[in-house]
Amino acid sequence: MNYNHIREAAYKANMQLPELGLVLFTFGNVSAVDRTLGVFAIKPSGVPYNELSPAKMVIVDFDGNTVEGNLRPSSDTLTHAVLYKHWINIGGIVHTHSTYATAWAQSQRDIPIFGTTHADHNTVDIPCAPPMDDEMIKGNYEYETGFQIMNCFKEKELNYEEVEMILVGNHAPFTWGKTPEKAVYNSAVLESIAQMAYLTGQINPKAPRLKNALIKKHFERKHGPDSYYGQ
Amino acid sequence: MNYNHIREAAYKANMQLPELGLVLFTFGNVSAVDRTLGVFAIKPSGVPYNELSPAKMVIVDFDGNTVEGNLRPSSDTLTHAVLYKHWINIGGIVHTHSTYATAWAQSQRDIPIFGTTHADHNTVDIPCAPPMDDEMIKGNYEYETGFQIMNCFKEKELNYEEVEMILVGNHAPFTWGKTPEKAVYNSAVLESIAQMAYLTGQINPKAPRLKNALIKKHFERKHGPDSYYGQ
Amino acid sequence: MNYNHIREAAYKANMQLPELGLVLFTFGNVSAVDRTLGVFAIKPSGVPYNELSPAKMVIVDFDGNTVEGNLRPSSDTLTHAVLYKHWINIGGIVHTHSTYATAWAQSQRDIPIFGTTHADHNTVDIPCAPPMDDEMIKGNYEYETGFQIMNCFKEKELNYEEVEMILVGNHAPFTWGKTPEKAVYNSAVLESIAQMAYLTGQINPKAPRLKNALIKKHFERKHGPDSYYGQ
Amino acid sequence: MNYNHIREAAYKANMQLPELGLVLFTFGNVSAVDRTLGVFAIKPSGVPYNELSPAKMVIVDFDGNTVEGNLRPSSDTLTHAVLYKHWINIGGIVHTHSTYATAWAQSQRDIPIFGTTHADHNTVDIPCAPPMDDEMIKGNYEYETGFQIMNCFKEKELNYEEVEMILVGNHAPFTWGKTPEKAVYNSAVLESIAQMAYLTGQINPKAPRLKNALIKKHFERKHGPDSYYGQ
Repeated sequence: MNYNHIREAAYKANMQLPELGLVLFTFGNVSAVDRTLGVFAIKPSGVPYNELSPAKMVIVDFDGNTVEGNLRPSSDTLTHAVLYKHWINIGGIVHTHSTYATAWAQSQRDIPIFGTTHADHNTVDIPCAPPMDDEMIKGNYEYETGFQIMNCFKEKELNYEEVEMILVGNHAPFTWGKTPEKAVYNSAVLESIAQMAYLTGQINPKAPRLKNALIKKHFERKHGPDSYYGQ
Repeated sequence: MNYNHIREAAYKANMQLPELGLVLFTFGNVSAVDRTLGVFAIKPSGVPYNELSPAKMVIVDFDGNTVEGNLRPSSDTLTHAVLYKHWINIGGIVHTHSTYATAWAQSQRDIPIFGTTHADHNTVDIPCAPPMDDEMIKGNYEYETGFQIMNCFKEKELNYEEVEMILVGNHAPFTWGKTPEKAVYNSAVLESIAQMAYLTGQINPKAPRLKNALIKKHFERKHGPDSYYGQ
Repeated sequence: MNYNHIREAAYKANMQLPELGLVLFTFGNVSAVDRTLGVFAIKPSGVPYNELSPAKMVIVDFDGNTVEGNLRPSSDTLTHAVLYKHWINIGGIVHTHSTYATAWAQSQRDIPIFGTTHADHNTVDIPCAPPMDDEMIKGNYEYETGFQIMNCFKEKELNYEEVEMILVGNHAPFTWGKTPEKAVYNSAVLESIAQMAYLTGQINPKAPRLKNALIKKHFERKHGPDSYYGQ
Repeated sequence: MNYNHIREAAYKANMQLPELGLVLFTFGNVSAVDRTLGVFAIKPSGVPYNELSPAKMVIVDFDGNTVEGNLRPSSDTLTHAVLYKHWINIGGIVHTHSTYATAWAQSQRDIPIFGTTHADHNTVDIPCAPPMDDEMIKGNYEYETGFQIMNCFKEKELNYEEVEMILVGNHAPFTWGKTPEKAVYNSAVLESIAQMAYLTGQINPKAPRLKNALIKKHFERKHGPDSYYGQ
């Protein structure tokens, strides 16, 4: 098997994280999937970004088994595996501990949709999944984190193809997308939205959510059949 | 027709936005007008800044029709067109989602004039236009955004040649000026003022507005017949 | 007369301001004095930092008269002149609109001495001079700003050789020192202290001032006959 | 004696502080120990980072006596000496005045464990030692600072091999580790945790501490016999 294409894609996407200011040291990871082969390439655990190379990416299947690679994969690998297995149209996943998004996750609060920067990307508040039950934490923790994310989407009746980001309560954000590049883009957008929402709440604690007509308009400018943003 | 001068001017001004830290990805756009030809050059929609070139700028008339260019113009083009059409002394327009200015826009609050940094550029609170009526949003949204901006200036009896910046409620800032460079300068000044005003409100929630004598003095240092700032 | 030594000193010190993140565009200025010649070199008004050169510095006497130079001196020149004239041991003066120090000035609050970073440089709260009377503002404003600063020191019984920084209420900070380099150093230290004090007040609105024993100890570590900091 | 290995290690670690944004001017210092020789290498006092070299590091014994070197050692040297003497498994120590950690120290508050970024490194709130008694301050201040740190650990029943960081009330953070690199890493982690905790408290003043099951899980992922983070 030749996995060079996903090794290369995962490598490039991982290297964007420090460039975008989304990680300190090794606190983040990106994966890139090949749906035909049923595997994904993911950052090795604890390896600094400036020592990464495509060859160091680890190839893992959807049950979390290492298929190829000499290094141990990211400790969050099972969360990626669960999401790839069940959300079949995802092409890439990102996990970071970016400052503002993580602060919201630690606050256990959804990020309210306060403006059009948010609405350009999501029509809803950015969900914050509650912390897991103790039994799940003591069990297969990273595996359960994947289900915690999916359960939160089910309860809130969200569609992972429309909302491509979540905060895991007390932990930090996960984002995804059709490609690893899009997933990284979503992580940077989330961090920016999180910072703006924080400042908005400080300036005006009673700031109202964006009204529905504006939510609809801005989302449709960028998405859907009549979108007119981009080329 | 030769539009190279405004293509070049719009290109240079657009490239300043990431340098000044005012944009993430493609969340901003600058245009440069030629009043004699009745057209302006504007950033193409969704094209990353590092892929821009003067040749990629799109030439558009004051009704929003593309006059020359292979790419789709910025999705905010109609807002620019309306402002150029009615505010006949504007030479350039900038739209960004810069962090602090956008937070104030999301808070739906005018930025109070707290100090001389503000007064060096404006004698009034920086206005925040209210969100539009739903009918206007559903209609020709970007076109109506231009009128929303102008209506706010009319209601507050502001002069667009004296006050060269506005927040569009729930959305983000627009700035303008006699030249595209001045409009970009205004965007950076607005972001700085917005951050200082945010911090001032946090340090002292009862911080008073700047007194009139100081407002007048500082503005006149930089502007008007007796100005003594600059060369 | 040869003014090259103060032109060079003022140039170098001015160029440090953007490097240290203390200025946006031209919102700051540094001067360097020659006490024997009774003149100082100061940044020309409104000239961007990347266009500065030693030759462009303007030579001014202690009454604010331009002695040599083709450009108009900084609009704050008279404030520098007054301070050089009356505070005879100052070698350099800096004015910036740095973000956090300016926010405290706009808040019209002294910066409380919360910790040893502050005490390493000052034994008192950093004073904030009140805004001027309207008559003074309408008169020779920059000249009066110099007196406003000196009056604040008199009222608070502060010594300009011990406390080398002040906030001018609603305006922004001024700092000084035995040399222009020291004055720039003080501007950077002030901005850092201002940010830390802001954060301290947010984390603990009842945070106590530093106790006297620590104020004394830390100041004496760096200053005075028994100092043991530095070489 | 040849001290080149610890000179080199201390030099490299010191140079990381400005790269990681943890120091302004000379407000920080790192030391590296050689337990066999019973000495450590530490930054000279007041020397700017861009003028440092391995040869300028000062060699000091555990009682604070200079063993080799022409420059005066950091004014915090005695604090390092005390900690090396009593905490026998420490290989490196860092002191900074990094912005957010110092703000917490000035607030005299422990940093609550709000999320997994914190739990990846510590299972407890990051302790803030109370300010010293006046008698200790007037005495051998830096020496007493070492005991202040150790006493705080004793009172809170903390183990310096598990918790490698502390805030000294009204002053600033100290961190340590098995190596100087690890101690610098801890300083950067502490600053990031301090910023996130600050933001969390602002977003949700009632944000709960992380629950015990998550604290345990995340710490064990990175530490202890069953850790599965890193290579």
